[in-house]
Amino acid sequence: MSEFRKDPVTGRWVIIATERAKRPSDFKLNAEEKSNGPCAFCGGHENETPKEIFFIGSSPSNWDVRVIPNMYPALRIEGNLDREGMGMCDMMQGVGAHEVIIETPDHTKELSDLSVDEIKKVLMAYKARIIDLEKDKRLKYVLIFKNKGKEAGASLQHAHSQLIATPITPKRVKEELQGAKEYYEYKRRCVFCDYIKQETKVFKERVIKEDEHFVALAPFASSFPFEVWILPKKHSPDFSAIGDKEVEGFAAMLKDILNRIKKVLNDPPYNYVLHMAPFRRPKTGYWGSIDEDYHWYLEITPRITRLAGFELGSDFYINPTPPEIAAEVLRNG
Amino acid sequence: MSEFRKDPVTGRWVIIATERAKRPSDFKLNAEEKSNGPCAFCGGHENETPKEIFFIGSSPSNWDVRVIPNMYPALRIEGNLDREGMGMCDMMQGVGAHEVIIETPDHTKELSDLSVDEIKKVLMAYKARIIDLEKDKRLKYVLIFKNKGKEAGASLQHAHSQLIATPITPKRVKEELQGAKEYYEYKRRCVFCDYIKQETKVFKERVIKEDEHFVALAPFASSFPFEVWILPKKHSPDFSAIGDKEVEGFAAMLKDILNRIKKVLNDPPYNYVLHMAPFRRPKTGYWGSIDEDYHWYLEITPRITRLAGFELGSDFYINPTPPEIAAEVLRNG
Repeated sequence: MSEFRKDPVTGRWVIIATERAKRPSDFKLNAEEKSNGPCAFCGGHENETPKEIFFIGSSPSNWDVRVIPNMYPALRIEGNLDREGMGMCDMMQGVGAHEVIIETPDHTKELSDLSVDEIKKVLMAYKARIIDLEKDKRLKYVLIFKNKGKEAGASLQHAHSQLIATPITPKRVKEELQGAKEYYEYKRRCVFCDYIKQETKVFKERVIKEDEHFVALAPFASSFPFEVWILPKKHSPDFSAIGDKEVEGFAAMLKDILNRIKKVLNDPPYNYVLHMAPFRRPKTGYWGSIDEDYHWYLEITPRITRLAGFELGSDFYINPTPPEIAAEVLRNG
Repeated sequence: MSEFRKDPVTGRWVIIATERAKRPSDFKLNAEEKSNGPCAFCGGHENETPKEIFFIGSSPSNWDVRVIPNMYPALRIEGNLDREGMGMCDMMQGVGAHEVIIETPDHTKELSDLSVDEIKKVLMAYKARIIDLEKDKRLKYVLIFKNKGKEAGASLQHAHSQLIATPITPKRVKEELQGAKEYYEYKRRCVFCDYIKQETKVFKERVIKEDEHFVALAPFASSFPFEVWILPKKHSPDFSAIGDKEVEGFAAMLKDILNRIKKVLNDPPYNYVLHMAPFRRPKTGYWGSIDEDYHWYLEITPRITRLAGFELGSDFYINPTPPEIAAEVLRNG
């Protein structure tokens, strides 16, 4: 069973995921993941994976998007969250959820190859899983992410994203919520709404694309070269509250941006992460509705540089590409 | 000129390092770095690099350890630290220092191949540079780190470490200082001293090696598989206060641990980072001397897994190898 363990100095939690590789011989850093298929994620191979948790399609064997439990889960739904002390240290059982969203039954396609309508179904699957997992009162957050390519941490080539639901709000999410809250208390406005306005109306140079519902931009303090954020223009803290028309716009923007990144950076490995408010936030805060301060968005990070000792030791990122240049290149891409 | 930029939401600073790769064509993620030498870091090739800042040896052309400015510095000493606003965003000039410590004139050797006496000279060079950089009142911290191997971010094969001195205390250092301070205020003892005692006297299972002056252990909440900390047993917040005899003990322990990692994990890429107190901390705090709460140490992280979307988006690490197993493997290695 996996464990959460808390560092006695910084208070950071880590997941010790005992169902995965453990011993030196289990690690294959340079393992090749390319395959011509078919694989267990392909249509017609449903019996090679655990039973699906959710699908979009006409039947469990004729699906467009399929959600299954991760076969080597970092966390599992079973267990309790009692904290145990070990001397000065704290631990908890690895309770949570770890699921795989298979984006297409077709082994040969990647997410950006799918039609807008197909990408929309992937996003609708994200939404459905968030709404379902929120019912488990032990869970505080669900992080939806995609690892594309070996250098970005993918171990399988077939197009998929993942979600990990945790009983602890992740540290980086807490930092964002805290920053957004402080800004809101000072300004009584959402920091993201103000930021979108500044970037699209005033500076413009970091905007990559903009339409009625969404904007894609290279953030002012990008940690990674060619980092892109896709933000909804309409204020909303919860991705899961997204409407039908917005999902379509988001799918179209995502497809366009992923294809620009692919073209301009020669099909790089990348990650994306959906940022959203944690489950069951209290609905009123000191200044009124707490839903007014946070704003969901998607962060896409091409992995064309490597994290080195400086970044690991300091949590301070060195980014060689000014976002103004990244935006210009992607705008013209 | 490089810039510090502050994210308007989280308040995290990043370095936009404009003297490095910028455009898509500048990035070569899979560039091979192996070379049989000689290279600009080799003995006899001193004129191919900027003039040395410091050396240990009989003359600038007959050196054992040589410190030079980084040729593509993330930060430079020239400039001022005035903050500029850009709408909601903050920036500062990229003032600081970025130096390379060439660990040996011999292209064919890596750090763990050097003798204890040679490694001691590398550590003495770290100490000398810290003491010198502390004199620049604009600087708050110097992070000394090593990237070994392409996957760990090294771009040159010749054995070297780096330092980056910053006018901002890095976020991760602040978290540690804060955690150590809270523990000290509660217990009136150093959290690291207590932790060393717990691990060596009570649990023992995570200890890899111990001698008179140092202990090497797999930390309870390791973020990475086979992560190792080397801690001095004697309490000291400042690496730069290390004595001659201790440096020798540290060099011997470092050589031994690096060789164990090399053997057990088949010569993996790795990073190490020296953790220490920032420059010019006030010497007395509420409870007495502030030097009592923090403790320097070296953190070594083999890079045998990849950071993926989950870690980047959450700052929450998944580690597949329990540190008890890592310690057992390294103890027997």
